[in-house]
Amino acid sequence: MSYRDADIWHMRSALNMARTGLGRVAPNPSVGCVIVKDGLVIGRARTADGGRPHAETQALAQAGKSAQGATAFVTLEPCAHIGKTPPCAQALIDAGLGKVVIGTLDPDTRVSGQGISMLQNAGIEVVTGVLDGQCRALNAGYFLAREKARPLITLKTASTLDSKIATASGESKWITGVAARRFAHIERSQHDAILVGVNTILADNPSLTSRIEGVDHAPVRIVLDTQLRLSSQEKLFDFIDKNPVWVVTSKSKNEAQMLLKKGAEILTLPVNEDGQIDLKSLMGVLAEKGLTRVLVEGGAQVATGFLKCGLFDRFLWFHSASILGSGAYNSIQEININNLNNSIKLKFIDRRILGQDMLDIYEKAQ
Amino acid sequence: MSYRDADIWHMRSALNMARTGLGRVAPNPSVGCVIVKDGLVIGRARTADGGRPHAETQALAQAGKSAQGATAFVTLEPCAHIGKTPPCAQALIDAGLGKVVIGTLDPDTRVSGQGISMLQNAGIEVVTGVLDGQCRALNAGYFLAREKARPLITLKTASTLDSKIATASGESKWITGVAARRFAHIERSQHDAILVGVNTILADNPSLTSRIEGVDHAPVRIVLDTQLRLSSQEKLFDFIDKNPVWVVTSKSKNEAQMLLKKGAEILTLPVNEDGQIDLKSLMGVLAEKGLTRVLVEGGAQVATGFLKCGLFDRFLWFHSASILGSGAYNSIQEININNLNNSIKLKFIDRRILGQDMLDIYEKAQ
Repeated sequence: MSYRDADIWHMRSALNMARTGLGRVAPNPSVGCVIVKDGLVIGRARTADGGRPHAETQALAQAGKSAQGATAFVTLEPCAHIGKTPPCAQALIDAGLGKVVIGTLDPDTRVSGQGISMLQNAGIEVVTGVLDGQCRALNAGYFLAREKARPLITLKTASTLDSKIATASGESKWITGVAARRFAHIERSQHDAILVGVNTILADNPSLTSRIEGVDHAPVRIVLDTQLRLSSQEKLFDFIDKNPVWVVTSKSKNEAQMLLKKGAEILTLPVNEDGQIDLKSLMGVLAEKGLTRVLVEGGAQVATGFLKCGLFDRFLWFHSASILGSGAYNSIQEININNLNNSIKLKFIDRRILGQDMLDIYEKAQ
Repeated sequence: MSYRDADIWHMRSALNMARTGLGRVAPNPSVGCVIVKDGLVIGRARTADGGRPHAETQALAQAGKSAQGATAFVTLEPCAHIGKTPPCAQALIDAGLGKVVIGTLDPDTRVSGQGISMLQNAGIEVVTGVLDGQCRALNAGYFLAREKARPLITLKTASTLDSKIATASGESKWITGVAARRFAHIERSQHDAILVGVNTILADNPSLTSRIEGVDHAPVRIVLDTQLRLSSQEKLFDFIDKNPVWVVTSKSKNEAQMLLKKGAEILTLPVNEDGQIDLKSLMGVLAEKGLTRVLVEGGAQVATGFLKCGLFDRFLWFHSASILGSGAYNSIQEININNLNNSIKLKFIDRRILGQDMLDIYEKAQ
């Protein structure tokens, strides 16, 4: 099927709107909506922070009465079920839209295909599948949560060219420079949560907030702390009202009184044969709790855990153009791969030059 | 100083000619010469394979009598001394050139500035410094041999993203795919010699020739074999008439009868405190023997040796988009760097996508 140039143009615009909502709308998808009449854009919006109101509602409000007979471009099929708000499909019908162009279908069983049916039954022309792949990719986290009961998982590491994250004596500040670290904050801001192992907290005492001037973003901070080694005095617990802390442990809530008192949420999960939190179970829990995009920031043990069980979608590898030699700390630990065929395969997507450093973006090879 | 667009245009053309001579003209520099009259190119050449005839002689032969009053563009100052052939500066004078545009000066004390003087004394207009930096960079090997008594050194490695060159069991064929390995042969063809450690020979038994269809190139193969572990039966010794083998060792020629009989040249050199061949001494010897561009192909121990003493100019790092984990073999061995400030610094120059693999090209940071 081929589409009109104008359909692609406006869908791209709706996609760009939607992109700004990543990391801000979970558990909802970030949807973009552009309303066009006689070639003029009369309304455009994305899913609001927190997930409400939806893109269509806001764009319709901007368009007002002009929406009559106009065309709406939405990246995701308009909802058809009555949730916290009336269905968007109904709102589009009520506003008298003449045509609705849809990027991709909603996998939510309460919606899938029904939004389209509602519109068509009301006599509205519906076109589907415009930039379908891009519309799915943008909300990969939402789709994964619906289809695989886990959030999108982005792994991140920052190493030398020989894959080292610290000198033998443990010096790691900083492997990469200011530009690379700033970019890492942009990535943080596009995720619902940041996940690290307790060793990273105890070694570096990071605050794990998303700090970009002019951007207000409060990711959940998730710490894998199997043995409950956190004391509750770590920097992480500052501003916990705005930035929640979830501690994932094999221990019971009873054993985590200090952390509970500080306001942390305790998630008790089973461990695997290595004594590590079972990551597949954890990802199921995180998806259930409404997370769609999780950034795994390390350290090496945690990154290796996710790699080992193939639980990742994207891999952000920041590199400084330097070499430390084999005595320094590895960014990836032992995986026990006996032959080359079994190596973990990635697919190169993009490279960015960030000052003296580089960021390579990979996806998991299919 | 600013130059005419046409000067830059023709000098670039001369540089492109010269580039095709890299790895084929040692101990000479690869020089490009373009002769232009009334806007038409009437002659162009580069230093011939093996270093003779020079670019100017060939270009003048093409131009014939039309050279009278024409302009010559040469990437390097024409020679002024009588060596194996009469000086090129004299040939340009004899041909009646009106103007000579020169890229950069020759560091050879028998030439430097004298080529220019000869031309000017004969009444020829001389312009110098057009694309000076590029002209120097192209013949970096020649300049290093003259100025630092060592050839240009290119290090090469092919590893996974986590810097591994083989699985724990030693499987290394192939980390990278066909496109990357082909490109490595192009790099081989632009070097006068390929240098490896004896472990690489004993493990992989490579022929270390430069194999590109349609390109005839016979690099010297240099093996660091401190303890003389080569048996003389290795593949390396095939075609030794065309592709010389130089064995670098701490042992005397007397102890290397088998290798000598096979036609290898034995270079006896001192070892450093680690019992390894002293690389600085070796590089001095190689420059003396006329090499200007040496490709160091590994293995890890040899690459680390060059890195440790800072003896390298370029670093070609081929990457497959895969991960093997810390149990696999490192591409870089121990360097004993205690703090981040002392890490070995590189400068990113370029990346090429080669099938599923990537090549990152670095230079040593100044």
